[in-house]
Amino acid sequence: MQSEAIENTPFPFDIGKASPKKLRNIFRTGSYQGTTAGMSDGYTQGNLAIIPERFALDFSRFCQRNPKSCPIVGVSDTGNPSMFTLGEEIDIRSDIPSYNVYREGQLETTQPSVEHLWRDDSVAFVIGCSFSFEEALTQAGVPLRHQELGRTCPMYRTNIENIKSGPFGGTMVVSMRPMSAADSIRASAITARFPHTHGMPVHIGSPEEIGIRNIEKPDWGDPTEFKNNEVPVFWACGVTPQNAIQEAGIPLVITHTPGSMLITDCRSTEN
Amino acid sequence: MQSEAIENTPFPFDIGKASPKKLRNIFRTGSYQGTTAGMSDGYTQGNLAIIPERFALDFSRFCQRNPKSCPIVGVSDTGNPSMFTLGEEIDIRSDIPSYNVYREGQLETTQPSVEHLWRDDSVAFVIGCSFSFEEALTQAGVPLRHQELGRTCPMYRTNIENIKSGPFGGTMVVSMRPMSAADSIRASAITARFPHTHGMPVHIGSPEEIGIRNIEKPDWGDPTEFKNNEVPVFWACGVTPQNAIQEAGIPLVITHTPGSMLITDCRSTEN
Repeated sequence: MQSEAIENTPFPFDIGKASPKKLRNIFRTGSYQGTTAGMSDGYTQGNLAIIPERFALDFSRFCQRNPKSCPIVGVSDTGNPSMFTLGEEIDIRSDIPSYNVYREGQLETTQPSVEHLWRDDSVAFVIGCSFSFEEALTQAGVPLRHQELGRTCPMYRTNIENIKSGPFGGTMVVSMRPMSAADSIRASAITARFPHTHGMPVHIGSPEEIGIRNIEKPDWGDPTEFKNNEVPVFWACGVTPQNAIQEAGIPLVITHTPGSMLITDCRSTEN
Repeated sequence: MQSEAIENTPFPFDIGKASPKKLRNIFRTGSYQGTTAGMSDGYTQGNLAIIPERFALDFSRFCQRNPKSCPIVGVSDTGNPSMFTLGEEIDIRSDIPSYNVYREGQLETTQPSVEHLWRDDSVAFVIGCSFSFEEALTQAGVPLRHQELGRTCPMYRTNIENIKSGPFGGTMVVSMRPMSAADSIRASAITARFPHTHGMPVHIGSPEEIGIRNIEKPDWGDPTEFKNNEVPVFWACGVTPQNAIQEAGIPLVITHTPGSMLITDCRSTEN
């Protein structure tokens, strides 16, 4: 999501126009472990969570009950890493630039492949992310401050309770983008068309109303800047399910490294 | 879905304006076992499937992979009949007017309550139905022939393969409504706004293209009538998952009796 990262891309071709498969095949070699921001314009990118099957039904219900934070884009068959519903020849164990491995909720390693950790009872969930709707906002001429500043979007814990399912609960995490009232209206209408990537905002205006005490101190990402008359616009964030998984005390969880997403063959505008 | 049924309602109040809870409390007594068509205008109604937990993850993946036929509106916790995500004090074992009980794929009984069949491993899935989008079409002035004729909407098997998950597979079932080309365009735009109730049409025009040989002989529901220059418009149908469940060879399945839906507290236009 940082523009520096996009500018410093090591690829000898236009990453925005490159096909998802071409890029996944490069990631599979392990030679690139950076951000996927700005890659394969128009294709859905997704967050990853690989968990053992015995938690998968409860997690699936958690996502169904909290669709704005956890829009499921695809679920693998148990033990099958091919992720065939999301694209051609995807191997979910190696086709993401970089993975985080958590044991008992603690980050253990970051690595370019997790083939050795995939098990017969592994289930991979891919969840929609904000890259797709940010692209739509940019195309519509809605300026995104964190991109202008070359920063990561600020994210905050809120007091909005998730609907529980089994060991999964907690509160919603939101991302925030400052914009004029006029742009916030357009952004609401535009993102409403992307239910698979968090949909319309969950709140506009007063951070206190949703339990955010200090807008200048995000819990994840970087602080941002407000211009005159701009309001904070909050969207449900894909960190919500990752947070819920970590709090649930699952022994082994594999996620993407933040910013290093799965690039799918699905068009962002598909219904 | 038959207008006779609506006209012959035994209720001493306006069923269209009655609250979902008021009607569910009447159904709970077992005194009414008919259709819910025309009831609680503006509230989502849903198809029911109660299956054992060991099939639930595969069925959940089946629905995620085939969202037009199987838009999940709610899933119960295992063994908990309260269906708390869909409304106040819902008891899914008794709050639907009438239930069908299938053993080994064969209809065994139809009854107003299934409390005695609910088990510790039961999981209830509620899936969006076409009542909600038909209401939106009617409000927009798109005429619905089967309602004019007092018939049930015709439904057909197609050659459109479902994406498989475990024992669940088969092909898509579609419902069909004849309309003018102009109305088919408006109907497409209107129903696109209802992803939780089958969304936009899956086909307009040639039945043969999707494997329907004789449009006058539907596999479920009643035949309908075409006026000059009308085209058949096909939507994914909630019979698809019921069909997949029956073909999967699950020992005990409980569904709603066709037309007797769960009336939820959720607004049809909610996102």
